[in-house]
Amino acid sequence: MPGVPPARYAYLGPVGTFTEQALRALPAARGAHVEPYIGVAAALEAVRVGDADGAVVPLENSVEGSVSVTLDELATGEPLVITREVTVPVELALLTRPGRDLYAVRTVATHPHAAAQCRSWLARHLPDVEVVPLGSTAQAAQMVGGPDAIYDAAIAAPIAAEHYRLSVLASRIGDNPDAITRFVLVSRPGALPPRTGADKTTLVAFIRDDHPGALLEVLDQFALRGVNLTRIESRPTGSALGRYCFSIDCEGHIAEARVGEALMGLRRVCADIRFLGSYPRLDEVETSVRTGTGDADYADATSWLARLRTGG
Amino acid sequence: MPGVPPARYAYLGPVGTFTEQALRALPAARGAHVEPYIGVAAALEAVRVGDADGAVVPLENSVEGSVSVTLDELATGEPLVITREVTVPVELALLTRPGRDLYAVRTVATHPHAAAQCRSWLARHLPDVEVVPLGSTAQAAQMVGGPDAIYDAAIAAPIAAEHYRLSVLASRIGDNPDAITRFVLVSRPGALPPRTGADKTTLVAFIRDDHPGALLEVLDQFALRGVNLTRIESRPTGSALGRYCFSIDCEGHIAEARVGEALMGLRRVCADIRFLGSYPRLDEVETSVRTGTGDADYADATSWLARLRTGG
Amino acid sequence: MPGVPPARYAYLGPVGTFTEQALRALPAARGAHVEPYIGVAAALEAVRVGDADGAVVPLENSVEGSVSVTLDELATGEPLVITREVTVPVELALLTRPGRDLYAVRTVATHPHAAAQCRSWLARHLPDVEVVPLGSTAQAAQMVGGPDAIYDAAIAAPIAAEHYRLSVLASRIGDNPDAITRFVLVSRPGALPPRTGADKTTLVAFIRDDHPGALLEVLDQFALRGVNLTRIESRPTGSALGRYCFSIDCEGHIAEARVGEALMGLRRVCADIRFLGSYPRLDEVETSVRTGTGDADYADATSWLARLRTGG
Amino acid sequence: MPGVPPARYAYLGPVGTFTEQALRALPAARGAHVEPYIGVAAALEAVRVGDADGAVVPLENSVEGSVSVTLDELATGEPLVITREVTVPVELALLTRPGRDLYAVRTVATHPHAAAQCRSWLARHLPDVEVVPLGSTAQAAQMVGGPDAIYDAAIAAPIAAEHYRLSVLASRIGDNPDAITRFVLVSRPGALPPRTGADKTTLVAFIRDDHPGALLEVLDQFALRGVNLTRIESRPTGSALGRYCFSIDCEGHIAEARVGEALMGLRRVCADIRFLGSYPRLDEVETSVRTGTGDADYADATSWLARLRTGG
Repeated sequence: MPGVPPARYAYLGPVGTFTEQALRALPAARGAHVEPYIGVAAALEAVRVGDADGAVVPLENSVEGSVSVTLDELATGEPLVITREVTVPVELALLTRPGRDLYAVRTVATHPHAAAQCRSWLARHLPDVEVVPLGSTAQAAQMVGGPDAIYDAAIAAPIAAEHYRLSVLASRIGDNPDAITRFVLVSRPGALPPRTGADKTTLVAFIRDDHPGALLEVLDQFALRGVNLTRIESRPTGSALGRYCFSIDCEGHIAEARVGEALMGLRRVCADIRFLGSYPRLDEVETSVRTGTGDADYADATSWLARLRTGG
Repeated sequence: MPGVPPARYAYLGPVGTFTEQALRALPAARGAHVEPYIGVAAALEAVRVGDADGAVVPLENSVEGSVSVTLDELATGEPLVITREVTVPVELALLTRPGRDLYAVRTVATHPHAAAQCRSWLARHLPDVEVVPLGSTAQAAQMVGGPDAIYDAAIAAPIAAEHYRLSVLASRIGDNPDAITRFVLVSRPGALPPRTGADKTTLVAFIRDDHPGALLEVLDQFALRGVNLTRIESRPTGSALGRYCFSIDCEGHIAEARVGEALMGLRRVCADIRFLGSYPRLDEVETSVRTGTGDADYADATSWLARLRTGG
Repeated sequence: MPGVPPARYAYLGPVGTFTEQALRALPAARGAHVEPYIGVAAALEAVRVGDADGAVVPLENSVEGSVSVTLDELATGEPLVITREVTVPVELALLTRPGRDLYAVRTVATHPHAAAQCRSWLARHLPDVEVVPLGSTAQAAQMVGGPDAIYDAAIAAPIAAEHYRLSVLASRIGDNPDAITRFVLVSRPGALPPRTGADKTTLVAFIRDDHPGALLEVLDQFALRGVNLTRIESRPTGSALGRYCFSIDCEGHIAEARVGEALMGLRRVCADIRFLGSYPRLDEVETSVRTGTGDADYADATSWLARLRTGG
Repeated sequence: MPGVPPARYAYLGPVGTFTEQALRALPAARGAHVEPYIGVAAALEAVRVGDADGAVVPLENSVEGSVSVTLDELATGEPLVITREVTVPVELALLTRPGRDLYAVRTVATHPHAAAQCRSWLARHLPDVEVVPLGSTAQAAQMVGGPDAIYDAAIAAPIAAEHYRLSVLASRIGDNPDAITRFVLVSRPGALPPRTGADKTTLVAFIRDDHPGALLEVLDQFALRGVNLTRIESRPTGSALGRYCFSIDCEGHIAEARVGEALMGLRRVCADIRFLGSYPRLDEVETSVRTGTGDADYADATSWLARLRTGG
């Protein structure tokens, strides 16, 4: 399509991290211009000011980079919405310059969380190695493979091997083979992804008061409409000590009646609600709809009430 | 208005009861044709088949006639709705034929419940009297005042004195001076009484399952929308042993958003809901509307959701 | 057993009612001295002052005599407890003096509720009969069978036929063949009936405030411990307008941990709790105990907590 | 005290971080042997195996190092308990070698989260600087101040200036002056810190099923006893996809009746509960005790139930 500029995507850098791997897994990213940013805030800012059409940032369970940062950045500032989620298996590998072998490894650079996840493997195979903590696994790879290489090996994502021309000495060295990291693609508000029947909705609820039961009132809004939560985290709001907001993922799409009513309920009882998007679940698990909470049930109740109100 | 026949009202008879007194207190009953029926069922049936435009029946706390009967009759059969409530103070009086005095009273006829409510007074003033239980206080008055009078005195409503040409030997002889009976005016469904800001809504909820928490699910529908209940009674449903329905009065009018949403919620989670009317509270206590549950809050939430759904 | 006087039981009279029938169904009543009282209050008073060892009174769904009276009488005054429940099928019969036949019946005396329950039968078989409402079905039988008989027939319990030497012209003439009335045997507090695994507990909860959710707080105390309710009725408390108490039956015995904890919870959040007894269910339906709410679960949690508190 | 070896404390290293600052704020740490560990897991392991008497690790809102790691490490493995909390204001400073000034700064090393928190300050004062992300702020300070210094300045905690003999060019350069990090002191189970009236309790609840309302059941256990939550986070449990546990802080001490009963309730309804300690709140905010939930209320209810059970 001549004349149409390629889409531009920001992501939490540097190059060679799991975040880049998540971005590469997005069909939309093929042929797009992608650019790493230092810090989640910078990546999101690029979208807010229009330098990027979307940003890929970690939301849950990341090896490197706190999820809290993403949650907090999305909860404030110019509104953004999630339009996709991507999960990446945490496949940590031991990378060295080509030709090296395991016996020559004296120093291993990596992010501290990655080191923690490989503790058993390191204890077994490199008990005497010095572990050097760096700001990201990609940075570690860079400092192993570049011209000014100062460490013998790096624990990093396999994608880092390509970027920094390294060899994989050992792969899948993490203690938990099932570990995954969840990323999201974030954009400026616009047309929502269509409803698929297997969707997730993300939002932040700022509660009005901090009394026993305040959280219950919030959760009741979901429970009463049969809407299941898949993630909840209380987050302190910077503005006032002792005040909390709740970052929440629930099943279903805002276009569904029961999700819509739950959101309206939250809007009424909370100090503020920030809607952060409805988007397809990556695991494609269909939303289970409890008896009486489907769209047809809502439509029936609505017309029933209309009849009663007119004395019919 | 020549040519317009007067309204016809049925009521739980016989004449001279508290129910007649309640009916007489209704402005609409002035100039109307009123007729006593034996039994609540018969009075309601008169409305259902069109023999009467409305019926006055006891709903709560009656001296004579079980409220349960009214609840059960309204819960089944052709739908009827409550359009007014009336309360009558339970002012029991000792009635005799004119000229009699207290010392000559050997037998006192009355309804057993009325006798129970005058126990202290009887013990003090007529310790040796024989109390004769009859089917209603009015019937007792009749059997004291009529040509075939067989009892010396009756405990009955003051209104019975007029009807049966009796004298009031002692008034307000009930043990609880604050006792009141609540009656309702019941009609065929039609235009609802307008909302006044001090209204009540009555309904019957037939729950779907009989598990711990089934009732809670029903009540949560009210609580979540800040709708206060003023009466609740579980009633066994004849059809299946161990199954219950709930007869409920709540504050507010079905025309209000929060009451409407609560009713729709019930409609979705219950096996059936029978709406029995929204009507002005006699005590004119204004409905207290909790923060976030007013009509303006609902309107705001609705337009907010519409904006989100269109990506605005 | 010479020297031991027989037990004495009071019941809601007169003789020949369903209440007497309920009393006769009690094994404990065999050989006992039984005595009818006019009104529930009088029967209960007989127990309170020691004139009777127990009283049988209607609690639910009675043909004659309002249940409300029983509920209110048990909720106040000197404490009494329920030790047994008895149900009696509402088998209404048409009784006449021996030798009469249906064609000669012009007047039928009965309690108004009993008349209501036989409406279909009367419409079919005695469409032109005059129904005379009396204070009880037994009184009706008496006024048909006695020397001063003034009515042709009575609708009453079969037991009334024996008492008043009447013939049964037609039996089971009620519209609902499954209708039952529930009675309870009430005594002064003492050793509780032993736990059977199929028990019921009755109590009255006086709520502290009348706000939306006050009832929910009460019900949550049951739901959280998996205790199912089988009956609930709000009752206005005489003392203050707009204030309510709740009369409640729940499954289980106060000796069970989960019922005990629920009661303690009520005691803490309510203005007052009146315990009205734990007693075997007549239907012998075993209490279903939800996972985590059995006595073993409570014992385990208690010892677990003790370990934690001592740092173990 | 000759003969008594000094206490040994582990902490999340390296030296010169906010965690070390938190440790130094503990009275117990004076005169103690303190040792940095790479990674939260390693610090906790030191306590588990007896190499340290306690460990200080971040729990909430950390500048560097994900809180999730701490939560996950405490939720599994050999049990540990929190005995103290410490908060440290996030006072980020720009550090250089002595004698340097701001105009000479071309490269700034720091942890990415610290860089994010100083975005505004950097944009204003060092718009063209290159930000180098490292594994911790302390590591950045080290690479500025050591003999092999390769960066011009570091953003780090003030404590790092002492350790690495650096000057503070600018202090409090973070965007949010109120930002704090919360740390906890973790030990092997033993005698609990005494109750102060201003305490917190931390635990992990592993829910039994993943259905709508599962979380509500957990929270109801707290709400019903008037126990306020101050933090909640759902955490995926490694063992089974789609299963969650909840990491929770609540007000009050396990020695209090209402907290104890809530914990027993959780123990009964959850698959597992891990108690992580009761300890004084650093902010000394006294626990507000709702009517009916104090220890006296519990004691009263307990003796009341005992009386009822014995028929008293």
